[in-house]
Amino acid sequence: MKNVTTECIYCGQNGTRDNLMIEIAQLSVSTVYLFKEQTYMGRCIVAYKDHVKDLHELSVEDRNAFMDDVCRVGKALEKVFNAQSINYGIFNDLIAHLHVHLVPKYQGGPNWGGTFDMAPKRTFLSPAGYERVIGEIRAELSK
Amino acid sequence: MKNVTTECIYCGQNGTRDNLMIEIAQLSVSTVYLFKEQTYMGRCIVAYKDHVKDLHELSVEDRNAFMDDVCRVGKALEKVFNAQSINYGIFNDLIAHLHVHLVPKYQGGPNWGGTFDMAPKRTFLSPAGYERVIGEIRAELSK
Repeated sequence: MKNVTTECIYCGQNGTRDNLMIEIAQLSVSTVYLFKEQTYMGRCIVAYKDHVKDLHELSVEDRNAFMDDVCRVGKALEKVFNAQSINYGIFNDLIAHLHVHLVPKYQGGPNWGGTFDMAPKRTFLSPAGYERVIGEIRAELSK
Repeated sequence: MKNVTTECIYCGQNGTRDNLMIEIAQLSVSTVYLFKEQTYMGRCIVAYKDHVKDLHELSVEDRNAFMDDVCRVGKALEKVFNAQSINYGIFNDLIAHLHVHLVPKYQGGPNWGGTFDMAPKRTFLSPAGYERVIGEIRAELSK
């Protein structure tokens, strides 16, 4: 991993990241995590392998590979959770390590028709629940 | 333009879109608009040429071209407005026509460190102000 900074939650191992998310899989140039807060069922984060702040800083080749990873996950989430849409958000003001929030949305569900709350802090799963959801996403990604 | 639907604000001419944004330029597979509400100075929308709901539905070639347009605009906004970061958001629950919100963020400015408000409805420019901003973005995009 290039450009590692020990202060970044996506660079190397750290407790802050582990409190917020669980690793699902390594993709071609990124890692996909399940966001522990599951108000939006299936919500994930795809984080680029290196410490780069903005998508437009990547080479065209790396950007295309990253967006391929992001779309692969988006498509998988839509299928696994029967989501009516997937919202995508990059908010890199303070965490200057490229990562995309992938937020499945459901007609009649939370914030349908709008944006999404960054941290609703209300819906968490049991360890078995996380294991089941992660297993389903992994299975779909490996197809 | 393929897959046109008359109900979509991004397909063809319509008043709803014109109330919300002003066309800046045609890019390779998209159009970039200035969002009239300018709480986040320089805020734009990049809309794909066809009526497609999700990024993952595009062919790899079209997706790469679209992301190239998006990044070209992001880079231009960062430079023209001296933004400290650019947030990117795709919220396609109801408007099922692929478009990305590009929201420049400023240290100490509105929602620095967080997400962004979809429609703050508080900061609008004069006609001359819009013309100036659009002129600066066009100039940077044409470099």
